[in-house]
Amino acid sequence: MPLERVCYDCGSRTTTPVARCDCGEPLWLATDPSALSTFDWDAVTDAPGMWRYAPLLPVDGVPADDAGLLHAAGGTPLLRTPALDDFAGARVHVKVEGEHPTGSFKDRGSALGVAAVAAGHAGDVSAVGTVSHGNMAMSTAAFAAAADLPCLVLVPADVPEARLEVVAQFDPTVRRVAGDYGRLYERTLDVGPDHGVAFLNSDVPLRTAGQKTTTLEICEAFATGADTASSATASTPASAPDAIVFPVSSGGHASAAWKALRELRESGVLDAADVPSLYLVQAAACAPIAEAFEADAEDVTPVEEDETIAYSIANPDPPSGKRALAAARDTGGAVLAVDDDAIRTAQRELATEAGLSVEAASAVALAGLQELTTRGTVDASDDVAVVATGTGLKEATGATVEAPTVDLADVDDELAAFGDAK
Amino acid sequence: MPLERVCYDCGSRTTTPVARCDCGEPLWLATDPSALSTFDWDAVTDAPGMWRYAPLLPVDGVPADDAGLLHAAGGTPLLRTPALDDFAGARVHVKVEGEHPTGSFKDRGSALGVAAVAAGHAGDVSAVGTVSHGNMAMSTAAFAAAADLPCLVLVPADVPEARLEVVAQFDPTVRRVAGDYGRLYERTLDVGPDHGVAFLNSDVPLRTAGQKTTTLEICEAFATGADTASSATASTPASAPDAIVFPVSSGGHASAAWKALRELRESGVLDAADVPSLYLVQAAACAPIAEAFEADAEDVTPVEEDETIAYSIANPDPPSGKRALAAARDTGGAVLAVDDDAIRTAQRELATEAGLSVEAASAVALAGLQELTTRGTVDASDDVAVVATGTGLKEATGATVEAPTVDLADVDDELAAFGDAK
Repeated sequence: MPLERVCYDCGSRTTTPVARCDCGEPLWLATDPSALSTFDWDAVTDAPGMWRYAPLLPVDGVPADDAGLLHAAGGTPLLRTPALDDFAGARVHVKVEGEHPTGSFKDRGSALGVAAVAAGHAGDVSAVGTVSHGNMAMSTAAFAAAADLPCLVLVPADVPEARLEVVAQFDPTVRRVAGDYGRLYERTLDVGPDHGVAFLNSDVPLRTAGQKTTTLEICEAFATGADTASSATASTPASAPDAIVFPVSSGGHASAAWKALRELRESGVLDAADVPSLYLVQAAACAPIAEAFEADAEDVTPVEEDETIAYSIANPDPPSGKRALAAARDTGGAVLAVDDDAIRTAQRELATEAGLSVEAASAVALAGLQELTTRGTVDASDDVAVVATGTGLKEATGATVEAPTVDLADVDDELAAFGDAK
Repeated sequence: MPLERVCYDCGSRTTTPVARCDCGEPLWLATDPSALSTFDWDAVTDAPGMWRYAPLLPVDGVPADDAGLLHAAGGTPLLRTPALDDFAGARVHVKVEGEHPTGSFKDRGSALGVAAVAAGHAGDVSAVGTVSHGNMAMSTAAFAAAADLPCLVLVPADVPEARLEVVAQFDPTVRRVAGDYGRLYERTLDVGPDHGVAFLNSDVPLRTAGQKTTTLEICEAFATGADTASSATASTPASAPDAIVFPVSSGGHASAAWKALRELRESGVLDAADVPSLYLVQAAACAPIAEAFEADAEDVTPVEEDETIAYSIANPDPPSGKRALAAARDTGGAVLAVDDDAIRTAQRELATEAGLSVEAASAVALAGLQELTTRGTVDASDDVAVVATGTGLKEATGATVEAPTVDLADVDDELAAFGDAK
């Protein structure tokens, strides 16, 4: 079955398995209109993880029971965490995307992409690839290994070897590429299929189709009262959060969120008034989408990248930048930037108050929410889902270790001192 | 409500919040007999994660909707992974415990322990502590932070600072202790409560009560057909796997599995004939329980510890060693040891065939299963749940990185070469 692709911008459609519209903008996979017209939360299946939304995904139902890793994508917790409310200035619900096999939301898109390739839905391809040096590389390699598909990972020439070790464990083919990263990213989309390789880059139709499910899960939790801790009363749970805050890099995840919300609106599951605002947050050191938003620009101008602790979202020339701008504007949201000090503070707050270890690139979402409430853009009574895109387990925490040595003979005294001080 | 504790060995009961029986053996928390008599899979709630089994847990129902991190414990995937069957010699189902907030099964016991302390069920204590330098330290610190309980982490004097950083991010009090680790472990259980600190060490009643849920989830998946990939037909799903394989260190998790199976048998949910055999696997470099099992000994003799890549299960003097022996014997299982080469091979197999990154200490379970099928102890037609206790994301993978550099101008040739070779 050839999957139809649609352009959010000019409305063109095609069944050719390309990532870009003739107008130059990134494509989405179209969703089956009959599935959309009959969709509501009661129609959701009890399949594992993200596959409960199979009717809205470009796959032939749920992967087989013995599909292994595919069943581990999605189904992450949404945690109501009042301990963060004061810091954030709103009612915080954290979506813990780190609880994935490779520790990030990337597993949703990798699962969808690999399942589609294996089922022959992605054109004449029999292998996958990706241009990435972080979470996406690891995720793509893992899901390819589980599906027994060859996998090619292309990384920038200067990536530290330690960051490649986590990718190499799944045994993909890895190449460092010397040259412009953005051009490499687009080139692989152009020529990959000629060589039988579906490149599951950050904002391609297959990946964003899988990443819709982050937002579907958040909205379902509110709508069905699985998250009954929302400010609405339990008997009439809110049908959606007031806002969802994402870190933004390529714009792929943000555009997937927008697509999900459009589908929920189109199916009648969400009224127009209930559609959550999408807020997208960048690191100030590399914030081309935020700068375009502030400047009321229609498109994003590439920037020079500075160093940031949120390196995994530092994309100076985001391929779905214009689409991310449209997502924020269409939903009444915004794109903003936060500096490394704010990111570090939010990361620490997540760990010490909510017990959540997230990577710096994920902490930008909470830092962004704080900025939004400070500005008065988001209210204290708003229920806000903060998407913690990736675990902090993969990187050094930078936490200061204060651990003086005591003798076993003195441990009773130490316990007494701790007991008195607590 | 004082929680009753019961000794598996001599049968004594007590409501004093102690970890050890007067006979010296570790205690379990008793489960409410009326809950047991009415329990079956239909009675399970739809609460998040491990709390669906609240009737069998020593808590007053499910934690409040705004309890944050507590809701993220449990509910991990059980993946039917045929790609591992040839290697293992049986039908493999992997329980992916790495999909927890801090990346290991320890979060189940930490969640239960912290919830019980916060609810006043653990005696006159208002803080938690633990003796650990790895997964358990991180897990306890995270759940304590989320519950706003003071936390004291005691580690051996020679632990590398890098391993403490992941603990320090949650801001517990950390002390290195010079002296015998086993004595420190027991001493904290003895005197912790005197100073208002509940030590959630590896095999204490509160922690093992939470860890029962690993086994409950595995059995429920088989019984209800949530894992319909078992060898029984879909219309009559197997009521339990034939065997469950755990890594074993202190013996706490193993004893929790045994307790869960005893409860399922007592409640009539499992017939005696359907109780899975518990196989417990150690690293050969430090295998006191396996040695005792081989020697038909009733109790475990401490050993000298050698180096092993599975360092996080290298316990030369396991406090629940005798209880683990009883668990294996009572269920018709066994305790065995595998060497580092076998562990490394199993770890690589999990990554390259199933896409699962696990720590070396978790890979021992798959290595052990291979040994059991080689011996003929487990059959090729057996459905076996292999418990992958912790993620591999926290440690260096040791994978060899082969990533030659190519020029962007040559990337088309590289794609062609990859396409031809695949």
